[in-house]
Parts: sequence; structure tokens; C-alpha cells
Amino acid sequence: MSKRTAIIDIGSNSARMAIFEKSSRFAFHLINETKSRVRIGEGAYNFGGVLQEPALKRAFTTLEEFGHVIKGYKCNKVLCIATSALRDAPNANAFINQVHHALNINIKIIEGTKEAYYGAVGALNYLKTIQNAVTIDIGGGSTELAKIENGLIVDTISLNIGTVRLKELFFDKKIPLEKIRSFINEEIEKIPERFTCKEMIGIGGTLRSLSKIIMERTHYPLKTVHGFEYEIASHASLVNAIVSSDVLGLKNLGVRKDRFDTMREGCIIFQSIVQKLSSETMITSGAGIREGAYLCDLLHSHHHKFSVDFKLSLRSFKDRFSLMEEDNLYIKRVSHLLFDTLSPLHGIPDNFKYELGVAAELHNIGTKLGFYQNHLHSFYFILNNLNYGFSHEEKILIAMLIKYHVNKLPTQEDMTLYKTLLPDMQTVQWLSFILSLAKAINSDMRRSKISFSYQNHTLSIQAEKRLFLAREQIKQLIKPASFAIIIK
Amino acid sequence: MSKRTAIIDIGSNSARMAIFEKSSRFAFHLINETKSRVRIGEGAYNFGGVLQEPALKRAFTTLEEFGHVIKGYKCNKVLCIATSALRDAPNANAFINQVHHALNINIKIIEGTKEAYYGAVGALNYLKTIQNAVTIDIGGGSTELAKIENGLIVDTISLNIGTVRLKELFFDKKIPLEKIRSFINEEIEKIPERFTCKEMIGIGGTLRSLSKIIMERTHYPLKTVHGFEYEIASHASLVNAIVSSDVLGLKNLGVRKDRFDTMREGCIIFQSIVQKLSSETMITSGAGIREGAYLCDLLHSHHHKFSVDFKLSLRSFKDRFSLMEEDNLYIKRVSHLLFDTLSPLHGIPDNFKYELGVAAELHNIGTKLGFYQNHLHSFYFILNNLNYGFSHEEKILIAMLIKYHVNKLPTQEDMTLYKTLLPDMQTVQWLSFILSLAKAINSDMRRSKISFSYQNHTLSIQAEKRLFLAREQIKQLIKPASFAIIIK
Repeated sequence: MSKRTAIIDIGSNSARMAIFEKSSRFAFHLINETKSRVRIGEGAYNFGGVLQEPALKRAFTTLEEFGHVIKGYKCNKVLCIATSALRDAPNANAFINQVHHALNINIKIIEGTKEAYYGAVGALNYLKTIQNAVTIDIGGGSTELAKIENGLIVDTISLNIGTVRLKELFFDKKIPLEKIRSFINEEIEKIPERFTCKEMIGIGGTLRSLSKIIMERTHYPLKTVHGFEYEIASHASLVNAIVSSDVLGLKNLGVRKDRFDTMREGCIIFQSIVQKLSSETMITSGAGIREGAYLCDLLHSHHHKFSVDFKLSLRSFKDRFSLMEEDNLYIKRVSHLLFDTLSPLHGIPDNFKYELGVAAELHNIGTKLGFYQNHLHSFYFILNNLNYGFSHEEKILIAMLIKYHVNKLPTQEDMTLYKTLLPDMQTVQWLSFILSLAKAINSDMRRSKISFSYQNHTLSIQAEKRLFLAREQIKQLIKPASFAIIIK
Repeated sequence: MSKRTAIIDIGSNSARMAIFEKSSRFAFHLINETKSRVRIGEGAYNFGGVLQEPALKRAFTTLEEFGHVIKGYKCNKVLCIATSALRDAPNANAFINQVHHALNINIKIIEGTKEAYYGAVGALNYLKTIQNAVTIDIGGGSTELAKIENGLIVDTISLNIGTVRLKELFFDKKIPLEKIRSFINEEIEKIPERFTCKEMIGIGGTLRSLSKIIMERTHYPLKTVHGFEYEIASHASLVNAIVSSDVLGLKNLGVRKDRFDTMREGCIIFQSIVQKLSSETMITSGAGIREGAYLCDLLHSHHHKFSVDFKLSLRSFKDRFSLMEEDNLYIKRVSHLLFDTLSPLHGIPDNFKYELGVAAELHNIGTKLGFYQNHLHSFYFILNNLNYGFSHEEKILIAMLIKYHVNKLPTQEDMTLYKTLLPDMQTVQWLSFILSLAKAINSDMRRSKISFSYQNHTLSIQAEKRLFLAREQIKQLIKPASFAIIIK
């Protein structure tokens, strides 16, 4: 696999390019995204799908410019896929040949089911672990669904309904909503029963925009749309309001200008499919077809799936920012030992050892930015970018443990902002304290063999090494409960 | 020069170790700081400077542990210096030999004038450009001064007054302040007339703590103590209050617990020296003797001074986070061209081209953390760590230009927090806009040859390349004044 790969996706609405940089065998991160509102499908739906000359010209120039950016970034590999608009176009081949000869870019038209598959691969590998769900990706020309059972993609389908298509065929002609709905419903009838599912994963611009609007309206404490979850029923009236709104109304509802011409169209499709599939909860995916195409290449001999304990952001953070990985793994082990030893005292469920462990692995990544206050930098890094492979609850807990593992324990007030996503204060305080103690123990960077015991309100630390610097650190720690610590 | 260097400094109060990692010929950053309150001089001042056994034992063990940390970080080089306490100690040599043989660490006792020199080298290379000033470093056993004229260190002196010394000889014995003052004044008489200077640079823990207290009391908008400037007269009553305070009073004045036993002592020395030298303004340096010792080694064939246009944090940021350095230098050149071309319109003084240029060089460093919202990450990086070689005014302006070079221009409200450190809103808006335009022009990453002209309220862009992607970007820019942009 090459170090930098460009993935181009020519949709009906816009052409987008993502450039990924690998940092280790399976880890990578996005270093550039370039987008142009090509609207290659513009006008085509009223001409039997034939792509129109001005649109083709825009598309060609855009790809030419993408080529310059690819060269600028010295990408070793380029994958270019095209979806609905080119799929439907009788004159697609001429365009593909032109691009191939003039620009040396090979456009690959993918089937709708493949498109659905890519989207699901992107979402599954980027989100927290998902067992059962249906992915939905509302595009300009088509809408893709994939059914996931026990973490595997078991079925895919592509429907010929999309935002630009509906706009040109219906909305622009002011055809009443009922007619549009019946057109959609006819198409939706094709979805097999198997796709019915409570949990839905939303991919693509329309559903991402909808999530952002909901996040703002509910004063959601995080800015990250990827991984944001909501109850669909709680926001049904908002979706309905968008569908029946005029442009001014869209603005008031919080729709951004560049979505004015596709938001109603997208929401009406969303409404209909939710009803058909009886879906109840939505989890938003920032990753979709481009990420999926990249991952299918990267994981071609791994069933297009990271191994269960591989978390993309964790590995990628460590590749980019970790200074002393071995020491952090030691601190992780010691944290887990301490958690177990002190378990009679704190009584915290075992599953929180996961967040504690990740916090230990990442607690000082902020040092890459600056040593002083590195715990605050680590907090910022995690809060803003530990997105792939983690739920929002996991992310904010990990971030908080790191923020408060130095100097002081978090108070109720410190936790107010993220309250809805965090466990109770005692839990956060204990985990934070355990991390700080484990870190203090390794003050001499010797990764001493160590064992702990707890009895009579006293934690005894038995270490192979002397732990001289550690003593000074441990003395300064603030404990979440009253007990003694002795170093033997 | 080695890649990782450990610098140990054995002071009367504590032993500290800094580990620096080089990233290019002259750039480096701190990756670890370890400190232990050894108090090697404890009890010595009442025994003719003879270091006492318990203190020596603590010092030995600390150095042993530092050795482990050095090994953990795989440092290639270790420099260990000792100041006042060992300088004054008749039994220093035995300790030095013991450490040499048992730990293979070579302690080098440095003279007071050398100590003053190191401190000044650290401060001068880490602060914004300084022409004339006097540095003052109040330590545990001694206080060092260096006189700077035209950016060069022209004289140094070391005085036998320090916080731990005063504490043991006077404060612990409850000797009245007047007696202490006359003891100090006698020592201060040794300072030559040449050191008299309006501008003072404060080095070391006492003056850093004092600055932090002043920052809190005045609600200073930045958290960075390095580079913080204040008028000494405006805070004379605070310093006086600290000197005459008891421990409870210190707490109420904002003194941190670990400074309770040296803050009064430090402040009384500060008061006396300020008076003697008629100093008016203070600029705080976070860098001192350790940084100076490191820099003297790094810059041994460069007169211990970075070249005038070398800014440590800028080079170090670029080494660590820059993705497309050539493109950023292009954007910098284009920004400067635009600044000049639009000068009749904005009328901004030329000196702001400096901040504009640095902003161009660093505008996307946040991409290292994450591509989405990378301008906000860059803002965070700069706000928190573009500390060395920059004034606070420069730093916050650079950070703001980057924060607002995407999507929108800063409003008066956006600037409120940093108002005292920023130029007027029009200036910030214009510079921000110029950066965004320069960046948009390079959307295709081709670094096109380009020229600009401005007349009849129209900016004309004449480029060798087509600038297709650029057009789409430029259309979305918000201008700080009403004029047209055409691409020829």
C-alpha cells in the first residue's frame, strides 16, 4: 500500500477528493480534502441521463485540477470512482476515455450495490463497534442501503432516488409533495424485508447536515458530527418542517446555504425510508464511500475489516504523537492492576478499564505540541480528533481522565458541560486518580516490576526498583477517598 | 550535536533536568522536565557552606534517578551544572567525585558570572528581539544579573543573596526586615553603574511566580508566562504586600503553596534591585540557565546567538507539523504581494507583513492533528505554544489571522478577549482576508506565477495557470471592504 493515496469520488452533485497518508500498516489519516460542486448530472435527468456538455466540461477541468493537487501532494496511488450520474449516462464512456487519455486518471464506474458496500465499509471501520444496523447514504442521484448483521455486511441495495434527481424531476417543477412521496415509495418497495432495523447509520452530506442541525438545536456538548447519535422520533417534526419549508424557512431551521437546494429532497427520502424500515435510532458517520474505497484497498486481504481490537484513531494518534510508547503501555498495565486492586474501594464496573487503558496510552501525546501543560494539549487532541473507533461517551471520558490526571480531580462543575455523556463524578475521579498514580510510579522511566495489595485502608506498593522520584509525585496526588499509600 | 540532550541544573533549592530533542540544525523542543526538591544547600548556610549529609544523600539519589530517566529517553548527551550551593561548599569535590564514579555524571560547577551568562543566553534567544535590558535571576543561593546592550551580553555579575540563603540566615530566625534589607543593600552595592536599565528581564522561579500572580490579578488574556510584560511600578504594592506578609497572607495574595517559603525572600531581593537599577518594565522569561547551557552548546560556533531572522518556535513548529512547506512559503509570498497591491485600500503599516508572513507559513499546521477544522487546531497550537522568538502581541495576532482566514472575518466581539494585545479590527480583518485569498489562489497546489494590480475598485489577478479551483474558493470569501476581484 502506498504512503499517500488520493480517492476521487464523482457524485451527481459534487466531485470530491480525499488524500490519506499512511502512518503504519493499517493506520492513516486524512491530510487533504478538495471538493468542487461539479454537478455532473445537471440537466441529465430530463434527458434520459445523458450528461450535458457544460457539466462534462466542468467535470473534466475539476479532474485536471485534482491531478495537480495529487501531484502537489506526491500521491503514490489514485483511485477514482463514479456513481449514479455516470452509471446512468449513455455517454459516460466517451468521458471516461477522454479523462483516461488526457489526464491519465482511470474512472471506475461502480454499481449501486458496490457503492452501498463501500459506504458501509467506511462507516463500520470508522465507528465504534456495530453489531446490527442498516446504513443509509442519500446521494444526488441514488440512495444506498447496506444491512449489517453481527458486524458483517450481509446485503446491499441501491435505489434510484436522490436529491438532485428529485430536485430536477419534481421540486423544480413545483410538483406537490404527495406525488413525490408516491414516487419515492414505489422505489422503496424494492427494499427487502431483511433491511428492517432499529439502528440506522447515516452516511453522506444530507444526513450529516441534519445531524449538525440537531446538535445545534439540542446544544449538544461536542462539535464532532461523526459518531453523534439521536432518537429519530424526537426529531421527526424537525425533519417534517424541513420537507415542507421554503428557502427562508430552511434558513430559520438552521440549514446552511449550500444545502438549500438538496435538504428538502434529502429529508423526504429519509422520512420515507425510516418509516419503511421502522428505524428508531440514528448514528451519524463522517466516513462513507471514499473511506470505504480506501479501506477496501488497504484491507483487501482482511475481509475489509479492521481486527476487533484495532481502533483507527488510537493507532493513528500513537503513530503521529507518541513519544514513549513502551512506557505508556507500562502505565496502562499498572493502571489496570491498580483498578483491580482498588476495586473493593471504588466498585467501578470493569468495562471502564477500557477507557482507562486508552487514556494511559495517550495521556502525554500533547507533549508533541509542548511539554508544559501537555495534559491540556492531550485533552484538546482527543476531544477534537479521537473520532474513529470510539463512541462520543468513550472519547469524552478518555479526554477527561487525561485532563484531570494532573494536580486535581474533576469536580461536578468541571463535568457539567459533558454531563450527559459521562459516568458519575466518583467514577471519573477514581479513574483519573488511578491514571495519575500509575504515571507517578513510572517517574523514573524504569518500568519496575510491581505488585499491589489493599487492606486496612492502605494500598501497599511493592516494587523491584526504589521509586524515589515516584514518592515525591505520589505525595502530591489528591485521592478520591480516604486511604493510605505506602511504598515498601 | 546529539538528537536528545539532558541538561541537569543543581540549584540550592531543587535539582531540575530538561531534555531537549532536536528537530533540525538549530531547532529543538523540550520533551521532558523532571524536578526534585533536593534542597542540597539545606542547613549549609549556618555551617560555612558545608553541605550536610542528608541533603547530599537526597542529591545523590535524585541524580541516580535522573540517570534512569536519561536512559529511558535514550539521550545522547548529558550536561550537568551546579551553581551557588556547590560553589560555596568546601566539601563539593567529594560529592562530585562520588557522582562521577558511581553514576558517570560529570557535575560542572559554574561561576556566578557564567550562571548569569547562561541565563541571559537562554532569555535572549527565547524572547522576542531585545536590544537593551538587564536580566535578573533570583536563585536559592545567589542572584545573577547580566547587562545587555544592542542585543549583546556586555557584563555579568553574581551576588551572594538568594531565597534559601535569606530564609535560613534571617527569615527563619525572625530577624526584622530592615536588617535583611541592609544586608541585601550591602551586597547590591557591588553592582556596577552600567547595569542601570529601564527594561528588566526576569528569569527563574520567583519572578515567574510573581508574573503569574500579576497575570491572574489583572485577568491577563493569555496563559503563557514566558514573554509576559508589565510595568513594575503598577505592581509595587503587591510586591510590598508579599514581602510583609505571613503565610496565610501569601495564600490570599495568590502565592502557590510550593512558593510559601521562598516568595517573600525573592520579592525583597527583587524590590531592592529594581530600586538600585531604576528599572521600569519587566519582561518574563520562561527560559534560563538550562536553556542557556543547552544553547551555548548548540550555538558554540555562532556566538551563542540565533541569527536575527531565526525564530525558534517557528522553525520548531515547521519541523514538527508542516506538511507542505514549499506551498506555505508560496502563500507567504503571495500574501505579501497582495498586501502591497491592496495597500492603497487598507493603509495598514508595513510592519504587519511580518505576522502575516508567519501566519501564512503556519496556517495549516493543525492538519497534523486533523484535517477538518485544521485552522482551529492551528489556532490552538499557536496560541498555546508559539512562544519562543515572539512577543505576545505577535503571537495572538498570528493566531487570530489563522483562526479567521476560513469562512468569516473576525468581529469586534471575537476580538474582545485579546483586545489589549491586538491592533484594530480593520487591520485584523484585512490581514486575515489577504491570507485567505492567497491560500485560495493556491487551491491547485501549483504555485502559479502571479501578479496583481489594483485600480477602479478592482483587484486583477494575472496568473500563469488557470486557477479553476481557486475561482470557486475566491467566490466564497468575505471581503473586509467593497471591491471586485477578477481573474484574468
